[in-house]
Amino acid sequence: MKPRLLELKEAVLSKNDLLAEELRNDFAHNNTFVLNWVSSPGSGKTALLEATLTQMHEAGLSVAALVGDLATENDANRLKRSGVPIRQIVTDGICHLEADMVRNRLDGWDLSTFDFLFIENVGNLVCPSSYDLGENLRVVLMSVTEGEDKPLKYPTMFNSADVAVITKIDLAEACEFDRRLAYENINAIRPGMHIIETSAKKAIGVSDWVDFLVQMRQAAMTKTS
Amino acid sequence: MKPRLLELKEAVLSKNDLLAEELRNDFAHNNTFVLNWVSSPGSGKTALLEATLTQMHEAGLSVAALVGDLATENDANRLKRSGVPIRQIVTDGICHLEADMVRNRLDGWDLSTFDFLFIENVGNLVCPSSYDLGENLRVVLMSVTEGEDKPLKYPTMFNSADVAVITKIDLAEACEFDRRLAYENINAIRPGMHIIETSAKKAIGVSDWVDFLVQMRQAAMTKTS
Repeated sequence: MKPRLLELKEAVLSKNDLLAEELRNDFAHNNTFVLNWVSSPGSGKTALLEATLTQMHEAGLSVAALVGDLATENDANRLKRSGVPIRQIVTDGICHLEADMVRNRLDGWDLSTFDFLFIENVGNLVCPSSYDLGENLRVVLMSVTEGEDKPLKYPTMFNSADVAVITKIDLAEACEFDRRLAYENINAIRPGMHIIETSAKKAIGVSDWVDFLVQMRQAAMTKTS
Repeated sequence: MKPRLLELKEAVLSKNDLLAEELRNDFAHNNTFVLNWVSSPGSGKTALLEATLTQMHEAGLSVAALVGDLATENDANRLKRSGVPIRQIVTDGICHLEADMVRNRLDGWDLSTFDFLFIENVGNLVCPSSYDLGENLRVVLMSVTEGEDKPLKYPTMFNSADVAVITKIDLAEACEFDRRLAYENINAIRPGMHIIETSAKKAIGVSDWVDFLVQMRQAAMTKTS
């Protein structure tokens, strides 16, 4: 049973990789910097995304977002308050986003009008790690309430990410969050990974986060131009 | 591609169901009451499990636990402090536990000596919902820090569970946890589901939780005797 299933899984993945590569070329061609946000359910992806979109929009940047969930359009409805184009991908039980879901949902959008495209993945620290969405930057979020050991227990996700955002930093004291241990564990899995601390609720670190993304986009544009 | 993969997935699931049924018969035959704990990563499964095992052990109940993780033996090492038999299942990248992993890891244990067997699943609110482990009770845990919308966004998991435990209740105020909304959302997905509030850190609700489990076991034993 297993080898055949594995073989098919590999075929699906390689099909996904080809499609992701096409998307990546499209994104580069249109100067759209794309982020894939992954985390546990409830780590605060949507809250930070709302703050990020709002701040970028107010700063005159052109941004859009795709948000993935197993069920409900709640996140898209919430994010629309930021005033930027938002579309929901309802996966209907599938535990991660795939490149073809992203491609289909982009239909009709003119990528060349977006400086940034944010993709919020399904809340899941395991399965989304295997699916490239053609992003420039994979962002793993981890809230202070989840425990400092998450990088060690979900190494594939942390290893495949490019930057780590520690969220809900306003709750650090209430949770007795051990910052040194968290950094140590992140670095054990992905040495040197850039780490940013934020609280969307208290507007801590959001400006630094936005500045960082703008810099990352500039660096990517310089590289491809 | 997809239909063939789906077909194979269904075959794997039905093989799992057959094995789970065998396990369920074994558990019943040995009067072992079995729980399958599912939740997001970092919702506090291991902390509540440690408190539960310790309290039951001190009360003279015979308990054991299997703990699932993608990587590391950290949880098993932590739980061994409770003084009860613990075994780790390292899934090596697989995002959920399956019945055959449970069966293999039980090898050499005399089930008839255990009143309770706790199975802590991999932290994942999606994939474990499809895999029956032969348990008597599926417990979904949700911490106050994750947001009240989790039942709506992960309906399959909440719908397949028998009881919900709200964890980290000591952080409710710091998180502005909306209890009424959380209960409403759980009931929207699984009407009438029993809900218990706990804080392992502050020892809130743990005794009620243990009493509840003892009652559930008695009810199950009466039914099968």
